Amino acid sequence: MGVKMVGARVKRVEDPRLLRGEGAFVDDIDIPGVLHMAVLRSPHAHARVLSVDVGPARGLRGVVDAFSAADLGPAPAPIPVLFPVETSRDTPQYALARDVVRYVGEGVAVVVAESRHVAEDALELIEVEYEVLDAVVDPVAAIEPGAPALHAAAPDNVGARLVYAVGDVDSAFETADRVVGDRLDMQRYTGIPLETRGVAATRDAVTGELTIWASNQWPHTLRGIVAGMLGMPERSVRVITPDVGGGFGTKAEVYPEDVLVPFAASRLDRPVKWIEDRNEHFLTLVHSREQIHELEFAMTNDGRITGLRARLITDIGAYQRTLAVINSSLAGTSIAGIYDIPNVHVEVICAATNKSPASPYRGAGAPEAAFARERLIDIAARELGIDRADLRRRNLIKPEQMPYDTGMASVEAAVVLDSGDFPAALDEALKMVDYDGFAERQRTARADGRLIGLGICVYHQLSGTGPFEGASVRVDPSGQVTVNSGAAPQGQGTATMLAQIVADELQVDHRSIKVVFGDTGRIGFGVGTFASRNAVMSGTSVLMAATKVREKAMELAAHLLEANVNDLELEEGYVQVKGSPQSKLSLTEIAAAAAPGGSRPPGMEPDLESVQYFENHAAPYSFGIHIAEVEVDRNTGLVEISRYVVVNDAGVIINPMVAEGQIAGGVAQGLGGALMEELVYDAQGQPQSASFMDYIVPGSLDVPEIEVGHLHSPSPLNPLGVKGMGEGGAIGGHSAIANAVADAIEHLGVRVTKTPLKPSVVWELMEAAGQQRP
Amino acid sequence: MGVKMVGARVKRVEDPRLLRGEGAFVDDIDIPGVLHMAVLRSPHAHARVLSVDVGPARGLRGVVDAFSAADLGPAPAPIPVLFPVETSRDTPQYALARDVVRYVGEGVAVVVAESRHVAEDALELIEVEYEVLDAVVDPVAAIEPGAPALHAAAPDNVGARLVYAVGDVDSAFETADRVVGDRLDMQRYTGIPLETRGVAATRDAVTGELTIWASNQWPHTLRGIVAGMLGMPERSVRVITPDVGGGFGTKAEVYPEDVLVPFAASRLDRPVKWIEDRNEHFLTLVHSREQIHELEFAMTNDGRITGLRARLITDIGAYQRTLAVINSSLAGTSIAGIYDIPNVHVEVICAATNKSPASPYRGAGAPEAAFARERLIDIAARELGIDRADLRRRNLIKPEQMPYDTGMASVEAAVVLDSGDFPAALDEALKMVDYDGFAERQRTARADGRLIGLGICVYHQLSGTGPFEGASVRVDPSGQVTVNSGAAPQGQGTATMLAQIVADELQVDHRSIKVVFGDTGRIGFGVGTFASRNAVMSGTSVLMAATKVREKAMELAAHLLEANVNDLELEEGYVQVKGSPQSKLSLTEIAAAAAPGGSRPPGMEPDLESVQYFENHAAPYSFGIHIAEVEVDRNTGLVEISRYVVVNDAGVIINPMVAEGQIAGGVAQGLGGALMEELVYDAQGQPQSASFMDYIVPGSLDVPEIEVGHLHSPSPLNPLGVKGMGEGGAIGGHSAIANAVADAIEHLGVRVTKTPLKPSVVWELMEAAGQQRP
Repeated sequence: MGVKMVGARVKRVEDPRLLRGEGAFVDDIDIPGVLHMAVLRSPHAHARVLSVDVGPARGLRGVVDAFSAADLGPAPAPIPVLFPVETSRDTPQYALARDVVRYVGEGVAVVVAESRHVAEDALELIEVEYEVLDAVVDPVAAIEPGAPALHAAAPDNVGARLVYAVGDVDSAFETADRVVGDRLDMQRYTGIPLETRGVAATRDAVTGELTIWASNQWPHTLRGIVAGMLGMPERSVRVITPDVGGGFGTKAEVYPEDVLVPFAASRLDRPVKWIEDRNEHFLTLVHSREQIHELEFAMTNDGRITGLRARLITDIGAYQRTLAVINSSLAGTSIAGIYDIPNVHVEVICAATNKSPASPYRGAGAPEAAFARERLIDIAARELGIDRADLRRRNLIKPEQMPYDTGMASVEAAVVLDSGDFPAALDEALKMVDYDGFAERQRTARADGRLIGLGICVYHQLSGTGPFEGASVRVDPSGQVTVNSGAAPQGQGTATMLAQIVADELQVDHRSIKVVFGDTGRIGFGVGTFASRNAVMSGTSVLMAATKVREKAMELAAHLLEANVNDLELEEGYVQVKGSPQSKLSLTEIAAAAAPGGSRPPGMEPDLESVQYFENHAAPYSFGIHIAEVEVDRNTGLVEISRYVVVNDAGVIINPMVAEGQIAGGVAQGLGGALMEELVYDAQGQPQSASFMDYIVPGSLDVPEIEVGHLHSPSPLNPLGVKGMGEGGAIGGHSAIANAVADAIEHLGVRVTKTPLKPSVVWELMEAAGQQRP
Repeated sequence: MGVKMVGARVKRVEDPRLLRGEGAFVDDIDIPGVLHMAVLRSPHAHARVLSVDVGPARGLRGVVDAFSAADLGPAPAPIPVLFPVETSRDTPQYALARDVVRYVGEGVAVVVAESRHVAEDALELIEVEYEVLDAVVDPVAAIEPGAPALHAAAPDNVGARLVYAVGDVDSAFETADRVVGDRLDMQRYTGIPLETRGVAATRDAVTGELTIWASNQWPHTLRGIVAGMLGMPERSVRVITPDVGGGFGTKAEVYPEDVLVPFAASRLDRPVKWIEDRNEHFLTLVHSREQIHELEFAMTNDGRITGLRARLITDIGAYQRTLAVINSSLAGTSIAGIYDIPNVHVEVICAATNKSPASPYRGAGAPEAAFARERLIDIAARELGIDRADLRRRNLIKPEQMPYDTGMASVEAAVVLDSGDFPAALDEALKMVDYDGFAERQRTARADGRLIGLGICVYHQLSGTGPFEGASVRVDPSGQVTVNSGAAPQGQGTATMLAQIVADELQVDHRSIKVVFGDTGRIGFGVGTFASRNAVMSGTSVLMAATKVREKAMELAAHLLEANVNDLELEEGYVQVKGSPQSKLSLTEIAAAAAPGGSRPPGMEPDLESVQYFENHAAPYSFGIHIAEVEVDRNTGLVEISRYVVVNDAGVIINPMVAEGQIAGGVAQGLGGALMEELVYDAQGQPQSASFMDYIVPGSLDVPEIEVGHLHSPSPLNPLGVKGMGEGGAIGGHSAIANAVADAIEHLGVRVTKTPLKPSVVWELMEAAGQQRP
């Protein structure tokens, strides 16, 4: 074998096209005669809809159609819940509100017009009579007796209740030397892709299919759900996700517009398009992270955590949609982290509020759980007088305990940690940041009147969830290698990664390989890109297909060269008889011979192609250690990150540059969550942060240089030995930075229990401790 | 097994959509921002192009581009010749004329503009300086010494010369009792599809492919050729043939516009479209049929034909393109028909003339050869005083001689007649038409002053040529059965036929099966639809794929039902344990289990799909007997067809209704050729029939009721036992009708040796015999 591409730090093959502005996003799909949809959205967080009159809108010149829920008839069905649990209550969202609106931004009616501006003008002519109801905004208040109920089926506003238990937690707490606990709150924030959502749909005159272009992370899944909601057979729908400008989980969801656009296109038999504006985006994108953690540890005096008891309240917003309980389930099952805690009891309550529905955002429950756990570990370390790194080390699962079955299973997968040396990773990170010298550095700084802090986060992440992913690999008679994958990446560099895998198998230049994603018309089955699954699921399915192609090429070459297949080797695009380099065939020659009418051994079918599906039944878990050093401005509360170290173990890394890009992006988003981002609602449920004026995301100058150390514990669960790691940065980043800020200021007598730690919040904390101006 | 669909007379599944006007032809493909191309065409049949100045055209508002050959650079290459023979001379056609134009209508320059009318206006501004050269119009004159030469490489205007010889023809003629010969001429005419040609091309922003929509019969072939001509890899081109409104062989060709449109789209990186107008169509469509036959039979006194000697001159027009020698080769190798003639010598001269290039049209050489042979048999019968049916019967190959190897091979396939009882077919046709009573009917009519005649044509046709065709069959988890075929039909009912084949294999309703054609993006390899190959090639590949799917479904069902596969049967969409109808699974359930994540036996790959290629190495030959009865109007020469009988043997017939539709369409076109259609050029090479005012095609009232009798000699060359038959009507029709007209008037002392037998021609024949007014 020649150069090994898996593991190579090569540039992303996607970038030249994107950097030249040649990307094709949904709004670039220009369908002749397309009509534009606009959605009339509720201005109330909670109200009864007494009447909707679209008649005046229909009268406006240029308007082609206008309708409300009353016009929809029995279809479309509500958005389905993919992972219902026993306790799930029916809180269905329909494509348009029926009798009640439950969040500001919920769709009430639709106008389809010759242009978007006419459609928007027409919205203002629609007459809606509302009876305003009391809104519930705070998730804790929502589940208190007497709170206004959102859904008849959930009069206590509990959408679902999950319990995860291992061991005997009551005994653990009874016999504990110490109990350390607190309430830790994470705020509502979410992924903010550069490209807002968008949907276009048209009936394909040639195939008769309803073709839907969507800025979306799971074309095959979307196809199935939208077809089901519209009461159409799946085969009548083709979903194409062209270039997608960011998703972060928020586009692995089915939204009302995903159904309304194809519904309108079918109703009118004309193409229809809707591109979300940024205001709609803030109002109606799935939000995430908002979770209350009442968490306590049972501990021995020497710092062993013997029990963990938690009650989590997840704010699920107004409706449970596709991935309703995922955040809650992953938070509940990951809250013990990679610590060896024998007794665990977690209750997660999904609380309905009059806010935009919640769904996974990068990390999906893990950032919340990690924040609560890692914050409480620091609090416990302080209370027990044990060094926080040492406390972590004492509790980490040891290499000899691996693989480690936590005894818990989320709705997605059992939590069995498949590989890794956690203490070694922690030690490596501590070494990189010169942890041993930090106490002295901090003392010196304080003596200079400067507030510096260091924060650690130890986390793990689920990756590579099933049930399967598919890929085809084909060498055409011109020698071109084409990969079709069921994945639908949004900027992760997946094409590069898959090309590297295929390059190793077929010994061709990875840059020559064409990788195609996001088209249900090109591969029969697929799942999509979310939950850090591409390397594991797409990577393995591509490896399987490439291996089959390689084997067939070798067999065919043996026939053509009249050689024994065992005497052949594949090198740099040529199959040759070992030791006889004059007797060789290029992959192109072999592919040409494989074409129908070519020269094949008896029984071999034509074409050099294989379609393979990787079906997994156990998910790998990657992990990491993040350490942040920050300095807090005493006068303004502004936090500056001075150092950032990551030790990442995601098994075999296919492309370190791509992996580091994922880490950096994740850390930036964790930083946003720790310090800036918050989706604020007022007491009436009115969003207060529905533009970039009010919702601050980190800019490039806010993000520090990130030092990354890689460890490589191959996963035994797939032939590549890979684990997903795209979400880790967002998990570790939020908590490491929050812990660092706490470390910088808690000696002043404050306690950090919630984020975001905006300057005003930090300033107020110091102010409350009488310390803001020493 | 339930109802057998192969053989069933069911309605075409294609028709409802087409009848509702929901077809999508190339001009229905509406690409945003599309530009329109127009072609400046030579007004001269033969001229040197001294200069072309597109500058003034570029100045017109709305013009985006204008170019001539000089601007094309080294690419595009000339249109390639697919079946070159040893004697082939280089007479290449480039996408635009370089130094010399060689027929009226040849492209000289191109304008691309915002609209077609602006493009056409701009054509008038292009300044071309021509030096007019002498034109050669008559193919016999073209090959005489001293004729102006079209191409330097063929100074005698002979593009190629083919010789086919079997036995010892000289001895046969030396020892013959009688020699009967004549010169028989068929005129230039061609297929006139309802939909003219059209091409659109655009770069697909998502895939980066150059997508070409073309009204064409062979998308995969076109892809390969156009990519080659443009110097692009095949993988960079996707060809889609949407609905195609007729082709008849004329669209199984590569035309200059097929290259110019994608060239312009690439040059401008903008979508470009060209839709042929009817005038362009008459000028530049491939013409066909024009062939001179100097034919003679060596005969015994009792009517056995012991030798056949022929010199054919095919008018190939100005250039040899893709299928250059096909007509000549098929005419040469089929001129002996299904008669047992032991000694044959045929020379075919491809003569270049200043007319639109020739290429196959329904029958491709066979109508010409059949006309000459069948006409000469009638002439011989008259000379020998033997009944013409009897003369044919005496010479037909006998069943015990089958399969019958003629010893000849065209450039496409060896001529080995695979099955059939020819004398039985002739007898059946004679019986259907009450041949024995005809002589009396004719006498009676003549006594009444009426001219009636009966004409027989015995013919065979090549079908199912290779090298291969491909198909996929898939049952998706919703139970939908989808077929993707490499075929690209133009109205033949192929979807119905393929659905019937799959219905038998999978025991599902044939109307529920979705059949998709004409997209190189949907199946890796394909050839196309021409040469009556769909039943044999597409049918067999679909059968192969459906069989594989069926076998997999049975195997999977055995696993699911925990039964032995041999104990299972497939009935009406269910697999059940024989004798235990309660233990059964629907095909939908089986397909769902086959999906990734489903339940399959170890080692079975997911998905219920198979892609199969049928590669054939021998082509089947179908045959038929056509008998026409006509009445000739003594006063006008107008021919009316009073009776039309066909006995058709194409092996197993998949759908008799579809087959009879093919026969009727073919007979209508043969009728057009026998009586009406002619592409006339004047002595300077100016077309005289470039509109429907001057080129008359049969209307529905001209076409008689056609009585069809089917015989079924299964082909041993494919598992379905089918043979192609789509061209037979056009082969038999022309000659049977011409012979019938001859029979009606030859007793007056005239001899019919050419077509079309327009009223004026018939009238003049009778006039020359002094008989037009008895």
